[in-house]
Amino acid sequence: MAFKSFDSHTDFARRHIGPSPEDIQEMLEAVGVSSLEELIQQTLPAAIRQEAPLSIGEGMSEAELLAHMRELANKNRVCVSLIGQGYYGTHLPPVIQRNILENPAWYTAYTPYQPEISQGRLEALLNFQTMVADLTGLDIANASLLDEATAAAEGMALAHRSLKEGRNRFFADRNLHPQTLAVLQTRAEPLGWELVVGDPEADLEPEGLFGAIFQYPDTLGEVRDLRGPIERVKKAGGLVVVAADLLALTLLTPPGELGADIAVGSAQRFGVPMGYGGPHAGYIAARDALKRGLPGRLVGVSVDARGNRALRLTLQTREQHIRREKATSNICTAQVLLAVVASMYAVYYGPKGLKAIAEEVHRKASVLAQGLERLGFRRVNKYFFDTLTVEAPGQADQIVRRALEQGINLRRVDADRVGIALDETTTPEVVEAVFRAFGGEFRYEAFEPREHLPLGLRRTSAYLTHPVFNRYHSETELLRYMRRLADRDLALDRAMIPLGSCTMKLNPTAALMPITWPEFAHLHPFAPAEQAEGYRELMERLGRWLCEITGYDAVSFQPNSGAQGEYAGLLAIRAYHRSRGEGQRRVCLIPSSAHGTNPASARMAGMEVVVVACDERGYVDLADLEAKARKYADTLAAVMVTYPSTHGVFEEGIRELCEIVHRYGGQVYLDGANLNAQVGLARPGDYGADVSHLNLHKTFAIPHGGGGPGMGPIVVKAHLAPFLPGHPVLDGGTAPVGPVSAAPFGSASILPISYAYIAMMGSEGLRRATEVAILNANYIAARLEPYYRVLYKNAKGRVAHECILDPRPFKQSCDITAEDIAKRLIDYGFHAPTMSFPVAGTLMVEPTESESKRELDRFIAAMVAIREEIARVERGELKAEESPLRHAPHTVLDLADEHWNRKYTRTEGCFPGGQSALDKYFSPVNRVDNVYGDRHVVCTCPPVEEYSRG
Amino acid sequence: MAFKSFDSHTDFARRHIGPSPEDIQEMLEAVGVSSLEELIQQTLPAAIRQEAPLSIGEGMSEAELLAHMRELANKNRVCVSLIGQGYYGTHLPPVIQRNILENPAWYTAYTPYQPEISQGRLEALLNFQTMVADLTGLDIANASLLDEATAAAEGMALAHRSLKEGRNRFFADRNLHPQTLAVLQTRAEPLGWELVVGDPEADLEPEGLFGAIFQYPDTLGEVRDLRGPIERVKKAGGLVVVAADLLALTLLTPPGELGADIAVGSAQRFGVPMGYGGPHAGYIAARDALKRGLPGRLVGVSVDARGNRALRLTLQTREQHIRREKATSNICTAQVLLAVVASMYAVYYGPKGLKAIAEEVHRKASVLAQGLERLGFRRVNKYFFDTLTVEAPGQADQIVRRALEQGINLRRVDADRVGIALDETTTPEVVEAVFRAFGGEFRYEAFEPREHLPLGLRRTSAYLTHPVFNRYHSETELLRYMRRLADRDLALDRAMIPLGSCTMKLNPTAALMPITWPEFAHLHPFAPAEQAEGYRELMERLGRWLCEITGYDAVSFQPNSGAQGEYAGLLAIRAYHRSRGEGQRRVCLIPSSAHGTNPASARMAGMEVVVVACDERGYVDLADLEAKARKYADTLAAVMVTYPSTHGVFEEGIRELCEIVHRYGGQVYLDGANLNAQVGLARPGDYGADVSHLNLHKTFAIPHGGGGPGMGPIVVKAHLAPFLPGHPVLDGGTAPVGPVSAAPFGSASILPISYAYIAMMGSEGLRRATEVAILNANYIAARLEPYYRVLYKNAKGRVAHECILDPRPFKQSCDITAEDIAKRLIDYGFHAPTMSFPVAGTLMVEPTESESKRELDRFIAAMVAIREEIARVERGELKAEESPLRHAPHTVLDLADEHWNRKYTRTEGCFPGGQSALDKYFSPVNRVDNVYGDRHVVCTCPPVEEYSRG
Repeated sequence: MAFKSFDSHTDFARRHIGPSPEDIQEMLEAVGVSSLEELIQQTLPAAIRQEAPLSIGEGMSEAELLAHMRELANKNRVCVSLIGQGYYGTHLPPVIQRNILENPAWYTAYTPYQPEISQGRLEALLNFQTMVADLTGLDIANASLLDEATAAAEGMALAHRSLKEGRNRFFADRNLHPQTLAVLQTRAEPLGWELVVGDPEADLEPEGLFGAIFQYPDTLGEVRDLRGPIERVKKAGGLVVVAADLLALTLLTPPGELGADIAVGSAQRFGVPMGYGGPHAGYIAARDALKRGLPGRLVGVSVDARGNRALRLTLQTREQHIRREKATSNICTAQVLLAVVASMYAVYYGPKGLKAIAEEVHRKASVLAQGLERLGFRRVNKYFFDTLTVEAPGQADQIVRRALEQGINLRRVDADRVGIALDETTTPEVVEAVFRAFGGEFRYEAFEPREHLPLGLRRTSAYLTHPVFNRYHSETELLRYMRRLADRDLALDRAMIPLGSCTMKLNPTAALMPITWPEFAHLHPFAPAEQAEGYRELMERLGRWLCEITGYDAVSFQPNSGAQGEYAGLLAIRAYHRSRGEGQRRVCLIPSSAHGTNPASARMAGMEVVVVACDERGYVDLADLEAKARKYADTLAAVMVTYPSTHGVFEEGIRELCEIVHRYGGQVYLDGANLNAQVGLARPGDYGADVSHLNLHKTFAIPHGGGGPGMGPIVVKAHLAPFLPGHPVLDGGTAPVGPVSAAPFGSASILPISYAYIAMMGSEGLRRATEVAILNANYIAARLEPYYRVLYKNAKGRVAHECILDPRPFKQSCDITAEDIAKRLIDYGFHAPTMSFPVAGTLMVEPTESESKRELDRFIAAMVAIREEIARVERGELKAEESPLRHAPHTVLDLADEHWNRKYTRTEGCFPGGQSALDKYFSPVNRVDNVYGDRHVVCTCPPVEEYSRG
Repeated sequence: MAFKSFDSHTDFARRHIGPSPEDIQEMLEAVGVSSLEELIQQTLPAAIRQEAPLSIGEGMSEAELLAHMRELANKNRVCVSLIGQGYYGTHLPPVIQRNILENPAWYTAYTPYQPEISQGRLEALLNFQTMVADLTGLDIANASLLDEATAAAEGMALAHRSLKEGRNRFFADRNLHPQTLAVLQTRAEPLGWELVVGDPEADLEPEGLFGAIFQYPDTLGEVRDLRGPIERVKKAGGLVVVAADLLALTLLTPPGELGADIAVGSAQRFGVPMGYGGPHAGYIAARDALKRGLPGRLVGVSVDARGNRALRLTLQTREQHIRREKATSNICTAQVLLAVVASMYAVYYGPKGLKAIAEEVHRKASVLAQGLERLGFRRVNKYFFDTLTVEAPGQADQIVRRALEQGINLRRVDADRVGIALDETTTPEVVEAVFRAFGGEFRYEAFEPREHLPLGLRRTSAYLTHPVFNRYHSETELLRYMRRLADRDLALDRAMIPLGSCTMKLNPTAALMPITWPEFAHLHPFAPAEQAEGYRELMERLGRWLCEITGYDAVSFQPNSGAQGEYAGLLAIRAYHRSRGEGQRRVCLIPSSAHGTNPASARMAGMEVVVVACDERGYVDLADLEAKARKYADTLAAVMVTYPSTHGVFEEGIRELCEIVHRYGGQVYLDGANLNAQVGLARPGDYGADVSHLNLHKTFAIPHGGGGPGMGPIVVKAHLAPFLPGHPVLDGGTAPVGPVSAAPFGSASILPISYAYIAMMGSEGLRRATEVAILNANYIAARLEPYYRVLYKNAKGRVAHECILDPRPFKQSCDITAEDIAKRLIDYGFHAPTMSFPVAGTLMVEPTESESKRELDRFIAAMVAIREEIARVERGELKAEESPLRHAPHTVLDLADEHWNRKYTRTEGCFPGGQSALDKYFSPVNRVDNVYGDRHVVCTCPPVEEYSRG
């Protein structure tokens, strides 16, 4: 018996990485190199190759990791948080936790850009939109935003965008949540908008405002009739945003009925754990007239090729439009997984259940209010839903301390005022403990609940009347509904998702387990720091690892999406220049190949975008770059560059590029989207970049969740560290750069995933993953090259971790498009590659390291078979519109077609490539009609009769 | 605003119960009563109606329950258990935990009696069988047994059954695990078999033995060459059973190659947590010649109507044969869910990985052995795999205590010997701590691992060479494989499973969550009692609740299946009679309508079965009962009766029946299979029964897991309490009745599910559930009566919680059978009802309380539509063999059939009843050929080329 070690320490990496050592040998041969090292030498410029190996250490086994996470978790202390301020206790129904949040069919899915294979989550998101529109009393809502504070900023931007009158003043309720106010300030200033903060009654001067935002109930809990202020703003030509609590809206006249144009807020308390700040789904709703300016993703109802109802993201060109040209929003990622959870919470409880929960919360608040009154405490807010602000001159600290001694967090508004926000989870014992903190000994039952809502603000209109909110109220029914929806979609748990630029790698189960542990899930973002020791330790170490991997010096976890990271990074550059008295540096160079969010982020950071050309190889044209840098030498702020480039190539001149920009006084923003091609091999901080954002949901294994949560922390060189985003709760608003997100650490509760991933991979595993990601891409490129042109390669003929296939010649030769190929891939059981980015009409393929050789070979075989299908059209055997390519994806309705009269057989259509019928995934709808959907925009659940189909 | 309470306390029951209050009103009208109470009065005999409500209290909310379970969990202490004795630490791979054990697609599935909609778990079980057959070196293995000890008993019984020579002596290795030996003794004695216990070398006298059992490695860890003893037994005409450790067999010459005929053991250490005793999958494997005597379920390869490969349970008539006539086994439930977990563990690691794990364990044991040798301790076992038994004269207690002080459980073999069993999870630190317990201070690295296996017993043969064990070694690949298999099956997460007698109700997510918590999952069954305080408290309260619900006085949680419960109950009756000097009482009356396990259990308990007639209503013929009781007055031991009867009716004479049996000195065994019709309404202990088993996997919400785990605790009146099963670890073997299961508390780790269910339902919820279960059944009966004859009803025309539909007339009128209807229901998206039990040719439907009116209506509509399809055949519009009924279930291959020439359209075949194509479940195979499968018995994975299909 050989005593060769099983080596359980490197075990995780071996199972994270798809190809086995034997597979890797075969693949290297196919690529034409003798070793991984040789391939990397041919791929990565020697000039930037990192010398020392990573010093993260050996990878932990899954069991070690879970034991370690348990220790970290135990260092967090779960108190009862009555801090409110936008974050509330809530019970996530176990059936939703298990079957959505912990179910790979949901969490590994991608953004529903391919609507045919995303009908399940599109329906869930349509439910979310309907729920938000109904509760806010507005016409249309999008499929979620990042958090309430950024939603408020998006509301402000929507108002500005919709008005088109050049007004630049915006009024903000001083009783917005402090973090909302702070984010508005951060966002307004670089755009040159003046934010006027004041009391909606006393301080409102509506003339010249492009809009105003009020909070309802406000941060102190007051429920105020906003009809007056709203009317005044509108009369003066402005638009009104109301930040509103969805649960309160089950009892209160909704913003739409008060006259508001836009409503924003959070769906957190609909079942989504506080998670020390996130992720949760922010929301935005608006009047129909504003829909084309609405930021973010919007699910709409359309039809498929058979005329059956089919959902899709609607008005997508609008999204591009906002991003590229007007650019007061760079919103991209949403919080889909959490929006789905919130929507299912509403589906489960229905209108009656939600109202009952709200009433119960209000009853508890009433008891609390009466007890505190009896103790002689005055309340700041006369009316309230769930939150009381109590005057306790000079006693606030003492009261907060006495509550804390009983394991309860209250809100210290200031030295004289204490805030108490109740929620679904508050028990009578907690109310009694709060009495004690205020010096009283009352039984909960001693008080008869009363109603404390203003007479004129009681909700009378119905909501959630659609059958979907009135059908699935037993656990069994909800379970089956969620399963049905899940089964419609194609996610990573069924097949490779070869999406270029998206890094759809394995989301390791062990890494995901801790996030639903109470110690990570149930912390309030503004809980005292000493309750979050585990988080602190985790973030400290994760930050160190990320710096080690990237060659930077400091990190901020606040940005909760990649686009937010870009924005925060540019704000840091901007503040850096200003701190040196060079505030005039506002020009941002961006190569023409950049991702659409890049120029949008630059615009939002108050910069002026100057485009740099790319050469025929897709490389940044260094001569043009230098020329532009020289031209704008005095005003050059930064360059934004993606590396390896969005064309999937390691450009040899990256070091030189950085040097040029530095030479002219600019800073280098390196977009970390493609970091999966570099980890362990090269460090941006070493070869010249000053700041990067990291898509933890790409390189570091946070799942895509069907379009969010993402997480986009930024890493910076030391000179930029002082300019990382601040947060009023951490620094009292004294930081040079304000917050970009509602919570100090963004979506903190998903950080354990990336932490776990790095811990289990270890130094060697991380590097190996990068090498295999590059191998997998080069293997696909090498194998497919005889069939499809591979668009960009480096001088040695290598691609980085992805490759662009160019089917544009087929458009010419036989009218077959990239879209036809993408949809046809569904018939072969695959999610489409990235379409038309970065080059219109092409397909970008990124396999990641997690895909096995078997799966790559299956994909290659499908692409080869499709090439032959194209050849049949080229040869004139059938026309493009007669071909299975154009009719793709095929459905069981095609199989069932009694009048089949296609030029190919059912089997050729539905089981191409000799696929077995066993385990075949069928698209639930035929190709979706994009034009119809954009012409007939319906973004809430359609009437029930339209649900039945033939 | 109305201040009506949301009443979150009764919230769970409301969501467990399918129909809403409004639905219930409509259903009552359809049934023709004005209230639930009126329905119950018409259904349940007034004479047995329980007077007082249950005193279990108010139901907890899910959140309260989880907090409460957390408290209980914290009262258990998770130590490192090196006790061995058949239970070992193991790492359940997270991806398997999440996607099998915690996935409703797997855990809510039923036993795969309907093979077409069970292909996924049948494949997983075939993998299990292949794994066991390969590792043991035998030809055929079944799809799991309950545990190692009962598997040994089944092995003994198989030997006896296979020999047919009337021999009655069986030799048992004295170094079997003590609990194995004890269960063998329990089982042998009532059957009149003599168990000779001794040393396989010194004490073996093979003449006249029907068989022998040896353990390999034995309980003290010795790896002994068994070729000699095996040969001697076989030469003398006996059969040899070897109890073997599967992990050890990756390194050791397997039992089959040593000459054994049968191998038994446990697959626990293949990823299944110890769970304080279970559930885990026991196994049995045998030579091909013994296959028709093999107990339990056997998955075999067959073909479907299109000639494609399809799996099914094979030789099922054999199962009945064993049970009814020979009856040395009553095995019924297996441990499917755990067998699936173990099989996936093997699939994930493959032969190399498993061997590496075994080598690693052996290396650690080598280090331990060398250290203890250096400390001067002698080892009892020269050779070993993972377990050392160390001589420490007079010091055993002290050493065990010193280990315990470091959080480690060792095995105290006796005052002079200590056992230490290492496993996959043992860390070097643990080995060092054991050194310290023995008084040594060595570093793990101080010793160079050596090999300690006998030269002649090193495994040379290959195993797990099938591709399924060599393909899915990355997490991504395994995840997708598990998803593919899950998608083939129809479980409760997609549709109602209206199986009469099986109570396929909701398995609440909240109730399932705690079972994978380490504090419940990682306790060794023989850990010191003070480490299991949480379990003790849980079992105490659960026992009290079960007694409260049933009217009994005492409980035993040991039986780990319903059939085991029957057996244990009858053993208690037998011991009771003997204790009163009435050992001659051996006659057991069993109504002709009884479940097949009843007579089998009676036979195994040494009783003689006398069948009692039933009348035309399906009732037990009380006159015949009394006549038989009188006839056997001196020898009457018991009656076994199911209530409500297997015919689904509350017989009015149940009280009288009990009185008759008691009058003649017999005891009443009341089969608790149908308890779901009684909870909160009637108590068997009140109306005359002496003992019942409770199917916790039916009434008390433990999921069926695709055919196990089950749990069958028994409840008894006080006079039987002394005769509940004992256990050598608890009582040193002094109890009047020995153990029936390997572990003292059976499958302890799933008890939290039933505990949680009762706690959340509360008194009122439990009663309400029973009422609604009865309503649902009567609603179906009332709605379907115009279309199908409802076979048995009580005098007032009511059924209990299930009803039998009688399609036998269609067999006469047009050759359409119950099977045709059952298979056709699959096309409508339903699992078939119970077929041909208790009445051949009929269908028994049990909806349970969890099914909503919507789902019931969908089922009713399907049955009505099917009736019309039958009518078309009756009218001669098409022949039976031309009808969609006979061709059911339909598959996508039918849809794809280019040569469709049926007498009905594709749509009529595949989307009957106007079903939408969206969300349609397709059977993965057409109707399975039973005859082919039984003629060509293949019970291991077929060659890979047979996997591909057209």
